[in-house]
Amino acid sequence: MVEKYTIRTDLAMEQKERFESDHVEVSGVVLEEEYDEEKEIKITTVKIETENGAKTMGKPVGTYLTLEAPNLAAGDEGYHREISETLAGFLAEYMQDENKGKEQRDRYSVLVVGLGNREVTPDALGPYVVDQLNITRHIVQEYGKYAIEEENGRSVSAVVPGVMAQTGMETAEIIKGIVQETSPDLIMVIDALAARSTKRLNRTIQISDAGIHPGAGVGNHRSAITKDTMGIPVIAIGVPTVVDAATIVNDTMENFIAALETSDSLRGVGVVLQGYNSAEKYELVKELISPHLNGMFVTPKDIDETIRRISYTISEALNILFSGKAVHISKNRA
Amino acid sequence: MVEKYTIRTDLAMEQKERFESDHVEVSGVVLEEEYDEEKEIKITTVKIETENGAKTMGKPVGTYLTLEAPNLAAGDEGYHREISETLAGFLAEYMQDENKGKEQRDRYSVLVVGLGNREVTPDALGPYVVDQLNITRHIVQEYGKYAIEEENGRSVSAVVPGVMAQTGMETAEIIKGIVQETSPDLIMVIDALAARSTKRLNRTIQISDAGIHPGAGVGNHRSAITKDTMGIPVIAIGVPTVVDAATIVNDTMENFIAALETSDSLRGVGVVLQGYNSAEKYELVKELISPHLNGMFVTPKDIDETIRRISYTISEALNILFSGKAVHISKNRA
Amino acid sequence: MVEKYTIRTDLAMEQKERFESDHVEVSGVVLEEEYDEEKEIKITTVKIETENGAKTMGKPVGTYLTLEAPNLAAGDEGYHREISETLAGFLAEYMQDENKGKEQRDRYSVLVVGLGNREVTPDALGPYVVDQLNITRHIVQEYGKYAIEEENGRSVSAVVPGVMAQTGMETAEIIKGIVQETSPDLIMVIDALAARSTKRLNRTIQISDAGIHPGAGVGNHRSAITKDTMGIPVIAIGVPTVVDAATIVNDTMENFIAALETSDSLRGVGVVLQGYNSAEKYELVKELISPHLNGMFVTPKDIDETIRRISYTISEALNILFSGKAVHISKNRA
Amino acid sequence: MVEKYTIRTDLAMEQKERFESDHVEVSGVVLEEEYDEEKEIKITTVKIETENGAKTMGKPVGTYLTLEAPNLAAGDEGYHREISETLAGFLAEYMQDENKGKEQRDRYSVLVVGLGNREVTPDALGPYVVDQLNITRHIVQEYGKYAIEEENGRSVSAVVPGVMAQTGMETAEIIKGIVQETSPDLIMVIDALAARSTKRLNRTIQISDAGIHPGAGVGNHRSAITKDTMGIPVIAIGVPTVVDAATIVNDTMENFIAALETSDSLRGVGVVLQGYNSAEKYELVKELISPHLNGMFVTPKDIDETIRRISYTISEALNILFSGKAVHISKNRA
Repeated sequence: MVEKYTIRTDLAMEQKERFESDHVEVSGVVLEEEYDEEKEIKITTVKIETENGAKTMGKPVGTYLTLEAPNLAAGDEGYHREISETLAGFLAEYMQDENKGKEQRDRYSVLVVGLGNREVTPDALGPYVVDQLNITRHIVQEYGKYAIEEENGRSVSAVVPGVMAQTGMETAEIIKGIVQETSPDLIMVIDALAARSTKRLNRTIQISDAGIHPGAGVGNHRSAITKDTMGIPVIAIGVPTVVDAATIVNDTMENFIAALETSDSLRGVGVVLQGYNSAEKYELVKELISPHLNGMFVTPKDIDETIRRISYTISEALNILFSGKAVHISKNRA
Repeated sequence: MVEKYTIRTDLAMEQKERFESDHVEVSGVVLEEEYDEEKEIKITTVKIETENGAKTMGKPVGTYLTLEAPNLAAGDEGYHREISETLAGFLAEYMQDENKGKEQRDRYSVLVVGLGNREVTPDALGPYVVDQLNITRHIVQEYGKYAIEEENGRSVSAVVPGVMAQTGMETAEIIKGIVQETSPDLIMVIDALAARSTKRLNRTIQISDAGIHPGAGVGNHRSAITKDTMGIPVIAIGVPTVVDAATIVNDTMENFIAALETSDSLRGVGVVLQGYNSAEKYELVKELISPHLNGMFVTPKDIDETIRRISYTISEALNILFSGKAVHISKNRA
Repeated sequence: MVEKYTIRTDLAMEQKERFESDHVEVSGVVLEEEYDEEKEIKITTVKIETENGAKTMGKPVGTYLTLEAPNLAAGDEGYHREISETLAGFLAEYMQDENKGKEQRDRYSVLVVGLGNREVTPDALGPYVVDQLNITRHIVQEYGKYAIEEENGRSVSAVVPGVMAQTGMETAEIIKGIVQETSPDLIMVIDALAARSTKRLNRTIQISDAGIHPGAGVGNHRSAITKDTMGIPVIAIGVPTVVDAATIVNDTMENFIAALETSDSLRGVGVVLQGYNSAEKYELVKELISPHLNGMFVTPKDIDETIRRISYTISEALNILFSGKAVHISKNRA
Repeated sequence: MVEKYTIRTDLAMEQKERFESDHVEVSGVVLEEEYDEEKEIKITTVKIETENGAKTMGKPVGTYLTLEAPNLAAGDEGYHREISETLAGFLAEYMQDENKGKEQRDRYSVLVVGLGNREVTPDALGPYVVDQLNITRHIVQEYGKYAIEEENGRSVSAVVPGVMAQTGMETAEIIKGIVQETSPDLIMVIDALAARSTKRLNRTIQISDAGIHPGAGVGNHRSAITKDTMGIPVIAIGVPTVVDAATIVNDTMENFIAALETSDSLRGVGVVLQGYNSAEKYELVKELISPHLNGMFVTPKDIDETIRRISYTISEALNILFSGKAVHISKNRA
């Protein structure tokens, strides 16, 4: 049964959902849901509170907040402004929490990291967000804080590090080096994610204080971008833009098996399959999935427009946030 | 059974293969295969000779030549030069055939069309090829044929028309208008294709004199780019860079059903499924494929490097061809 | 004296200004100026009314309206919205004039042409504007006019034809072909212009009903995009983003000569130079300008941000205009 | 007279030339020239040997080697291969010198830095070179040195840090951080340069062991990328792609004054101007140069093709160099 849950998703809410569909109780993990009818935004908070919960979920301890907005990829400007403001509000709360107890810093500074590969469209979200940010650190450095127009404006720096095939380096190495030289107070990482379901693509934004764990759970600690590895808080913002090809096939197969088991016309098949446990079924499926699917992803044909729109919405959220104009929204719902 | 063959592939050789795997004889279609051991290139020629063959194959009458080179997407410069030269040799033969009986034109001119969406990586093949071409038409127009260095050089023009979501126009409308105004002798269209199998991705080049038929078979004649619609010969060069998401799922399901039918341990299931015909099985599969897969494609994660390399190989082939230096290779094998 | 005025500028207002600085009256040309204090936009209208005026000005008969907005390239979002609305208002009036007397067409359609080279930053304005347009023609074609949300929405198509070095074709040939195939009612051309003065760069938008005349005055009629050559009205929108290198040198030299002529300390020089007429001075200057300056342009170092901002402002103006929401502003000032 | 030499050039050979044209002997600076007739490449070596020489030249102590190849920007593939090989040969010699006396390191590693702004065409040289490099460090890290095909292959990493307006950080801060985290043995920096003369644009490559000094001489030490600031050798490769606008104007003015001084017809002017010394003439010129020229540069209209070609030539040189196949050429000519 363990294998079943190795299906890749970067969304904590999907991981949680998966357990729920199996009526499995996960101790140390709390789920809360809320729906903003006016804005048509569904907010799901998954709190992984214990190391045990983290182990079961395959994700580190932290708060994972998910905004689902069906029209995130559509072309309605006013609607996007609302999402930007909502996102900025949650981020403001995350930022405050990370700096609780500290005096209001005079030059509170944020390093924004646009992860991903600019040359592969669904992976270009991070770079595109960074392209559209108002960068101010060099101005603050040169002329002091009051050179920024807004009273509560932050010192903002940003980098697009590229991916390992382009740089030959772990992204975490690059970021750590930059953090040590430029001493920001907070890292904000933007990344394109993999979802388990195509339904979630390009309509979901996940915010987390747990940082980024490429190949999470595999023990590849060198590559993590977290408070632990960086020495300062890390807030991750992600949007699922792809599904692993193997995941899609696997999911459909599971549906197929479920259908066979309950089918009227195929009852005979169902009887046979009911004799198999989850692990055996998983083996059956795995054998049939082409090895050629490794390193393959699924994404929509209009991904270029989608990435352009969502990157704009997120960059606007960050520009609102860093100008000090965000209206805080509590992430600790309920 | 018809439905079974609606699985999308733009490769004639895959369509043919599909019939063969079912031991179905397709009249009016001839297949030839050849292997160049030295160059490690497999060449498959599918000739659709009759309208009946065209109907069965779901592709128009014409010669479809496929080069399979396992290392097409790899980084070996010398190897790619050989592929460029081989490709140029076949294209020279296609061009000659299209202009058989004509006097050697003094200003024989070719319009190259880079189809696809520059902003979506696996669809950017056509635009990238055009970016790297030696364009000469404006020089020939201004200074005469002898302004081109090469003795047998062609007058070359090129255009990247964009896709309908960007232009609001059928690509065929744009090309037809340009053809009427600039009177080329031949159109050469470069496009990214969809394959049925991930095995074929980024290692296969298809050349065809049948032109381009977006949504082939659906009767959407306004969008075809063919000798019929354009009034001049059209040679299409395509490389499969994606597989439709629904196709991958379907294929795996078919494998699954086949496995069930022959499985020792699941013989009971097999007996039941053997009672279904192809159409019924197809319905079973279709029901289970998520509607969310519509408009989704599968492509490898390193598609950016792949597209960069293959577009260079093809552009070099065209630059060799248009400089008049290609060594003809007969496409009428056997 | 004729030579003096061959200094290149694509702005009618700069050409007019040049005559005025010499106290030369140009018959057949009317100039009007207006300043919108609230919006901080200066509006200059140059009407070339007679062929004689056209000859003197080196520009075809037509109305050239110029908006000067000092902060056009700066990052103030609200301000840009105002410019977009003002621009849309003027364009609405231009469009109406071009279609005066016609019944309100059911499917009034506009083809937007993004001229210039996407790969050369200051020349990428046209392509970038087109990238951000709401394209609707294919939707109207498929589902009828009511598929567009806005009541008075237009059918919009667009193309980025590329430049001659990329295509081997005159842009006018490409556009003419597309016009004949797709039958729009109006062409709107966006282009980066050359100004005479660096002061005008990136803060000036010129609208004209005279179309585009690459190499105007040289008699290169094949390359013009005008009502005459296209058969339908052409509205041109341009922003000066470069100055010809030779122009800058020439201008400085003229200033130098003027300084010498009036200088106290160099009165001796002035006396000598006063003995030269304009043509002789021009020859003197021309000799000294390096031939290496041919084909060179001058542009600011931050041209990337500038082009990004201005292209967004213009695309928003067009999106407002085509959605039917523009508030008309009379271009026939006074 | 000092002011005269503040005219910006990043090429040591142009700086030296300037002194020579004034018959000024610069102590501590050695110039050598050589012409390879077969390859049509002129090689100029400027060695700044003393701090005094450095002060006069306005450039740090080091060896500046310049290759001039008239056809560098033209489209001849064979020719470019020769330039790539020559460049690789010189670079091999530079690398050896920097590591003299050291044992042959088992995992000798190079960090390549692509300086400049990818979004401004003439400044995109560095990023484009990095795009085309064979990156190997991550493979060596994972599988050991023998995973690289070539026997003497290097471990290569690379980064495109962006410019300060995009990142808010000094490029030197970013690079220093990355160096500390990833411990390369050598930095190789690629950058677009400013020349004094348009004649030098896009046909000249400068190699130097003196590193990169943005705003050299201004004492802005935080921004230097040198052996001193980085702790490891830095080899800089630069190609002049722009001329400062003010430089072009200044140069023409100097020519003008020189012409006036010697002119037959304007002898009267010459007599007056001869009464002025260099500093006074410079003041005269400076007054007349528009302040609007600050932050403006001059570049050719076809800069996109040029940058594409030269970046390919340089990336090939580096790929040859890092594969261990370069044939050393002594940079210590004579």
